Amino acid sequence: MKTITVDLAAIGAAAKAAARRLSFLSTDAKNLALLGIADGLMASTGAILAANARDCEGAKAAGLSPAMLDRLLLDEQRLNGIANDVRAITALPDPVGETIESRRLPNGMEVGRVRVPLGVIGSIYESRPNVTIDIAALCIKSGNAAILRGGKESLHSNLALTAVVQRACGDAGLPDATVQYISDPDRALVGELLQLRGTIDLLIPRGGADLIRFVADNAAMPVVTGGIGVCHTYVDASADLEMACSVVYNAKVRRHTICNALDTLLVHRDVAPALLPRVAAALGGARVELRADPAALAILTAPGGAPEGTVAVPATPEDWGKEFLDLVAAVKVVDSLAEAMAHIDQYGSGHSEAIITEDYSAAERFLREVDAAAVYVNASTQFTDGGQFGLGAEVGISTQKMHARGPMGLRELTSYKWVVRGAGHIRPG
Amino acid sequence: MKTITVDLAAIGAAAKAAARRLSFLSTDAKNLALLGIADGLMASTGAILAANARDCEGAKAAGLSPAMLDRLLLDEQRLNGIANDVRAITALPDPVGETIESRRLPNGMEVGRVRVPLGVIGSIYESRPNVTIDIAALCIKSGNAAILRGGKESLHSNLALTAVVQRACGDAGLPDATVQYISDPDRALVGELLQLRGTIDLLIPRGGADLIRFVADNAAMPVVTGGIGVCHTYVDASADLEMACSVVYNAKVRRHTICNALDTLLVHRDVAPALLPRVAAALGGARVELRADPAALAILTAPGGAPEGTVAVPATPEDWGKEFLDLVAAVKVVDSLAEAMAHIDQYGSGHSEAIITEDYSAAERFLREVDAAAVYVNASTQFTDGGQFGLGAEVGISTQKMHARGPMGLRELTSYKWVVRGAGHIRPG
Repeated sequence: MKTITVDLAAIGAAAKAAARRLSFLSTDAKNLALLGIADGLMASTGAILAANARDCEGAKAAGLSPAMLDRLLLDEQRLNGIANDVRAITALPDPVGETIESRRLPNGMEVGRVRVPLGVIGSIYESRPNVTIDIAALCIKSGNAAILRGGKESLHSNLALTAVVQRACGDAGLPDATVQYISDPDRALVGELLQLRGTIDLLIPRGGADLIRFVADNAAMPVVTGGIGVCHTYVDASADLEMACSVVYNAKVRRHTICNALDTLLVHRDVAPALLPRVAAALGGARVELRADPAALAILTAPGGAPEGTVAVPATPEDWGKEFLDLVAAVKVVDSLAEAMAHIDQYGSGHSEAIITEDYSAAERFLREVDAAAVYVNASTQFTDGGQFGLGAEVGISTQKMHARGPMGLRELTSYKWVVRGAGHIRPG
Repeated sequence: MKTITVDLAAIGAAAKAAARRLSFLSTDAKNLALLGIADGLMASTGAILAANARDCEGAKAAGLSPAMLDRLLLDEQRLNGIANDVRAITALPDPVGETIESRRLPNGMEVGRVRVPLGVIGSIYESRPNVTIDIAALCIKSGNAAILRGGKESLHSNLALTAVVQRACGDAGLPDATVQYISDPDRALVGELLQLRGTIDLLIPRGGADLIRFVADNAAMPVVTGGIGVCHTYVDASADLEMACSVVYNAKVRRHTICNALDTLLVHRDVAPALLPRVAAALGGARVELRADPAALAILTAPGGAPEGTVAVPATPEDWGKEFLDLVAAVKVVDSLAEAMAHIDQYGSGHSEAIITEDYSAAERFLREVDAAAVYVNASTQFTDGGQFGLGAEVGISTQKMHARGPMGLRELTSYKWVVRGAGHIRPG
C-alpha cells in the first residue's frame, strides 16, 4: 500500500475555518466567485480538455465501458453547458440570511429563525467530472465549504476543474479552503473521510447504487441517501386508459437510466385486459421488455393480446422491488387499490410513486397513505427533480425523512439559528 | 448475564406497522387517546403511586442521592401536573397534514409539500418517570410510534404509566404498538436498540451528559444530540450595566441546573471595573462561585472590588468550556467583541450565546457571526426553551444543524412528502 500523502485532519480544519467565514459572506461576493468559475471554465478550456483527454485515454486503456467513457468525456459544448449551469446558480436566491419566521412574543422579545449554512459538505462521486463544478457551485452559493473526492478515472479532469474553482474563489476574496479536492488515489482515504464526524456536516455521494450504499452504511455523519428509486405506477380501475398509456410510457421511456423512472407497473384487474395490450404496444415500440406476473402474462400472450414483437416474459421474485435502470418493466395485476399500496409498501424505495385514476377518493387515499418522497396522481414520476419542482438547482434526491426529503436544492444545504432580540429581558419563574 | 427475553426485531416491526397507521389517523382520534391518557393517569393514581413507591424504596436501598430520589418521586400533585401537560398537548395544532407550501407549475401541475410523521421514535432516558408520558404524548400527537426504554430505577413506575398509555390507545382505536416499553433490564438491549437503523427513525436520549454522549456516539440512526449547553454571555463595552447585571443574574441563577444557564461571563475590559463588582454583589447574594481569569480576579479582589463574602477564585483551564450545572460561573475579561466571539467559537457547545450591548453594529455582528442554536441580544439565555419560543411543547433542544436546531416541538418530529396532482402530465425532453 502506498503512503497516504494527505492530512485529512488539516483539510478538515481548514474547511471548518473557511466555512465560518463563508457563513456570513455577502451574496454578491459568492456570486462573484461563481461568475469567476464560469469565466474560468471558458478561459481554461484548453487545459481542462487536455487533462480530460488524459483521463479518457487512461480509461480506455483500463477497458471502461463506452457508457462510462461517455460520462467521463468533456468537450467544448459540455464545458459550455457546465459554465452556463454555474451562471444560472448566481440567479437563484441566496438561502442564507433568509428569515424563516419571526414574531414578537407577549413579553416584547423578538424571536425568529434565520437560515445559516450547514458548514462543511463532503462529496464522494464517480466518473462524471461535471459533479466537481456542480457541487462546488452549490456549496459556494449556500455558504458551505466543500471537500471533494472524485473517482480516480477522472482525476486529471477534476484537478483542472478544481484549479479553476480555487482561482475564482481567491479572486473573489473567498477563503482558500472553500473547495478542497482530495487527489491522493488511496482508497483508504474514503474510509477515513467517512469517519470525519464533527468536521463534515453532510455527505453527498453521487454515483451508482453500490457507492451510495457503501457511503450510507459506513459514514459516521449524515448522508443524503437518495438516488435509489424503485418506482411504481398504479393504474386504477377508473383510470383514463389513454392517459395511463401516455404517463406510463413517459415514466419508463423518457429516460430509463434515472432514479425516477418507472420500474413496476401495477394494473387493476378490471382494466388490465384493455390496458395491457395498449401499454405493450407503446412500450414495445421503445423495445421495453415486460416481466409479467401470471395474470398479466396471460393477457399479454393471449391471441391478439399484445402486438407482434412484444417481449413479455414471466417475472421472477427478484423483479419486484428491483431498480432496473434499463428498458425493462415489471408488470403485475392487482385486485384493489389496497393491494397496490401494500405492494408499494413492501417493494418501493420511498422515492416516487404514482396512481392513475379518475376516482377522487382513490386519488386522495393514495396521496395520503403511500409513504414516499413524492406521490403523484395522474402524472409521470419523471417529474421528481429539483429543477421541475422549482428548486432551481438539485443537490440530490433524498429518500430519507430526516432534514430533507425528495429533491434537495440550495435551501436543503442550510440549517437555521434562532435569533432573539431583547431589551434586557429576563425569564420569570 | 441473564437471558434477553425481548425480541427487538418484533418490537421494531410492530412499531413500523403501527407508525404506518398512525401517519394518517385523524387529529380527533389522536386527541381522544391523549385525553384518555390524562384521565387514565387520574383513574390509576393509586396503582401508579404504589409502583413508584416500590421504585423509590429500591432506589433508597441502592443509595441514590436525594436529588435523584426527588427526580424519581411521583405524588398526586406531580401526576396531576403530568396529566395537565398531556391535556395541553391536545390543544396544540396537529403538524401532520399541514401543507408547507404548494404551487401550480407553469404546466398546470400542482406541486406541494405536506407534513408527515417521521415514523418510529426511540427514546432512552433516565430516572424521571414523567418522560414516559411526555414522549408518548408528543409521539402520539405527531403521529409517530414510540419505543421507550427508561432507567431501571424507575421500571415499575414506567410500566404502570405505559399501561395507562396502552389502555388509552386501545380505547381510542390506535394500534396496540403505538407506544411500546422495553422492560427487560439487560443493558445489552440498549446497544442493540441503537443499531435498529431502518426501524427507529429518530432517537431521543433524555438524561445526563454521559447518557447523551453514549447515545450520540453509538447510535446508527439520527439522534437529537442536545442538552449540553456551554453558554456564554458577553457584556460589551457599550452595555447598559444595570441591564447586564440583571440579565447575567437571571441567566445564571433563575435555574442553574438546566442546559441554557450561563456558564461563562465575558466582559469587555472597558466596563469590567464598573461591572464586575456589581455582578459579584448580585451573584454573591445567590452564593455563586466565580472562577475568574487574572484580569477579572484582580478587579474582584481589589480593595472595594467586590462585596464581603464574594467567592472569587482563579479559573483553571478546565473552567473554560465547562457546563457547570451548578452555582458556579467562569469570568473572563476580553479586549474586544472579536476576542469574545473567538472565545465562544472555541469553547461554546453551539447552544445559547448572548451579547449585552447598546451598540447596533456589535449586536448585528454577534447575531450574524456566532454559530449557535440560539443567539441573543440583551436577553437571558434561559429563554431557550420550546415553550418560551412558542412551540407549545418541547421534545428536546438540538445542538446539531441537520433537521432541527434549538428547541424541538411537534413540528420537528415530522418530515414531509411532495404531493403532485396532475392531469396526465408527462415530462418533456
